[in-house]
Amino acid sequence: MNSLIVQKQKYWEINSEDKVNFQILFTHSILSQFKFVENLSETNRVFLLIDENIWKIYKNQFETLINNSIKEFHIKKVKPDEENKTVDSSIEIIRFLDDKSLRRKSEPVIAIGGGVILDIASFAASIYRRGVPIIKIPTNLLAIVDACVGVKTGVNLGIKRNRIGTYYPPQKVLIDKSFLKTCPQRHITNGLGEIFKIALIKSSSLFKQLEAYTETVGIEEKLCIGALASKIINDSISLMLEELEPNLWEKNLQRCVDFGHSFSPYIELKNINELLHGEAVTLDCLFSTCLAFNLNFINKNKLLRIYRLANSLGLPIFHRDFTNKKLIEKSLNETKAHRNGNLNLPIPSDIGEYIFVNQLSDEIIDKTIDCYKLIKEEL
Amino acid sequence: MNSLIVQKQKYWEINSEDKVNFQILFTHSILSQFKFVENLSETNRVFLLIDENIWKIYKNQFETLINNSIKEFHIKKVKPDEENKTVDSSIEIIRFLDDKSLRRKSEPVIAIGGGVILDIASFAASIYRRGVPIIKIPTNLLAIVDACVGVKTGVNLGIKRNRIGTYYPPQKVLIDKSFLKTCPQRHITNGLGEIFKIALIKSSSLFKQLEAYTETVGIEEKLCIGALASKIINDSISLMLEELEPNLWEKNLQRCVDFGHSFSPYIELKNINELLHGEAVTLDCLFSTCLAFNLNFINKNKLLRIYRLANSLGLPIFHRDFTNKKLIEKSLNETKAHRNGNLNLPIPSDIGEYIFVNQLSDEIIDKTIDCYKLIKEEL
Repeated sequence: MNSLIVQKQKYWEINSEDKVNFQILFTHSILSQFKFVENLSETNRVFLLIDENIWKIYKNQFETLINNSIKEFHIKKVKPDEENKTVDSSIEIIRFLDDKSLRRKSEPVIAIGGGVILDIASFAASIYRRGVPIIKIPTNLLAIVDACVGVKTGVNLGIKRNRIGTYYPPQKVLIDKSFLKTCPQRHITNGLGEIFKIALIKSSSLFKQLEAYTETVGIEEKLCIGALASKIINDSISLMLEELEPNLWEKNLQRCVDFGHSFSPYIELKNINELLHGEAVTLDCLFSTCLAFNLNFINKNKLLRIYRLANSLGLPIFHRDFTNKKLIEKSLNETKAHRNGNLNLPIPSDIGEYIFVNQLSDEIIDKTIDCYKLIKEEL
Repeated sequence: MNSLIVQKQKYWEINSEDKVNFQILFTHSILSQFKFVENLSETNRVFLLIDENIWKIYKNQFETLINNSIKEFHIKKVKPDEENKTVDSSIEIIRFLDDKSLRRKSEPVIAIGGGVILDIASFAASIYRRGVPIIKIPTNLLAIVDACVGVKTGVNLGIKRNRIGTYYPPQKVLIDKSFLKTCPQRHITNGLGEIFKIALIKSSSLFKQLEAYTETVGIEEKLCIGALASKIINDSISLMLEELEPNLWEKNLQRCVDFGHSFSPYIELKNINELLHGEAVTLDCLFSTCLAFNLNFINKNKLLRIYRLANSLGLPIFHRDFTNKKLIEKSLNETKAHRNGNLNLPIPSDIGEYIFVNQLSDEIIDKTIDCYKLIKEEL
């Protein structure tokens, strides 16, 4: 750390640097052995925050591992529903940790679950004692390619998605793809939504891999084994990190990874019981692509090719709320405040390429809604 | 920002740096003109979070300033009581900002008040949209020499003081000492408690200035004017920054500025309606000095000299809870968890010098309690 205080007559200037370093690792051993837990050398206590659904599915395995361990386990099950992603849930986790006087640096919290659990748990870890270490273990595809990548934590404020949160690097992320074997198909598809997003905006190569994947493997097969699925997951994480890593604290609000997150956040939480995150993101990507088509960045063939890929992946390609101009405008206003008054709307300028749009006329929104209504009939 | 992704076969390594830079400035103009507000060039809107008491005292001045300003003001008054230092109060502030769609980077929140307001407001700012800028304006002595120095934010969790919080650098700190003119004497004395702490542990020169201050000025005079008072405030801030600035994120948990904060946090909140923060800190400093005396680091003369200074400053020198061994042990256990299992107890080894103690026998605690009970009779 460099440090310097310049004290002049009337002021002090504080300069400092916080260094961040963490790894995202693949592992195969979580359910067969608790090696990473046994390796926590500084403590005999293990604090697990675990997705209720994952606990139900793997209860026997976990209980065997825990019974065979020399460590002392403290376990809290957390509801994985989006409605549960609240400040109150985070405080509940904090009370659980505080009741046991968690040590501030040497007893990392271990969160195992989907994006909701990882987001709530990492927010809780980031504000308890101004931050205690957390190890994240994602158990579904969306969490693997999205929630566990980067340093964002967050909970919802009413229907404002992730309106409250922090930037908080985990101590470590452990990915065990064997969890995907029990991941419901809809949640695999949900994860494919974020992969579809990053491919469309940033990588024609990944886009083609996804096309090949739908042709050869078929959407009915789980995305957890096989060389192509592995490569798709790897590439997706690498592409995300390429964007996140130089801008971890979002000092730059022009972010291409915000593609799919401009119109959808409000609509997603409005339809909390109907839409999953990756589904809402996909719908936003498609709407934004219709916009790109109407602004003449994308031609008709490519527009259809993009729609066809989403469709073959099993993702939704239409939702009535994207045809409601008032909702679109409300979403854009929220998005604008979040991007400090600018739209910074990433839209595809080609498959795997993007530009930012900062002005949208009334007319172009109308045309985009019309296009969005009709295009699905042409597939 | 340096950035690097090392992608090997099975993992990614994320490296980054967050740079922090902010100033603590003196100003005389807050109540006579809103220059710093008019200078907010990127926005026409001003969001003020203001201490209810300060608003009551300065209502007319603020209203005149606001009426003469070209800016649009949004004002929220915040209760300055320690009981109000909760997550809920922070969420209430966030709702206030969110209702007005505060822009994420260019509309800084301005917090004016004592430590409670600055702590709640900066915690709220740090978690709203993962952080919006905040300008802090302390209005009492404790806030000037303590709450506004450094990057900690915090709210209480039940009677656990600052158990929830973040490290969050403000955009700027503006100190206007003219607020002290209306600061109640007990709150001036309260601020002197933190100054007494930093002097005793770190600076015999500041200690002597405080002694001179009690002799020449008398404690009945407010600490806001005069060269000596100014120098005391300046030195106190500089000494605090000397310790905080190289360790902003508390990666090192051996902190001499934790002097006075080892036995007191639990006792302070247990006596929330009786003890102010600086008073609780002073009581802890005196108890720790009794400990240092019993460990033969401090001789009797110095022990008495330290007690006499606290007494002359108008600070409390005795509280029954420090004679309750169960409470002392409970406090130490809490402190230990917060310091990751170590006591790291800073105690004076001389006036202006310190060492850390990591072991306390039962016997030494008994002796310290006995000393603490009796010493006040010898002044």
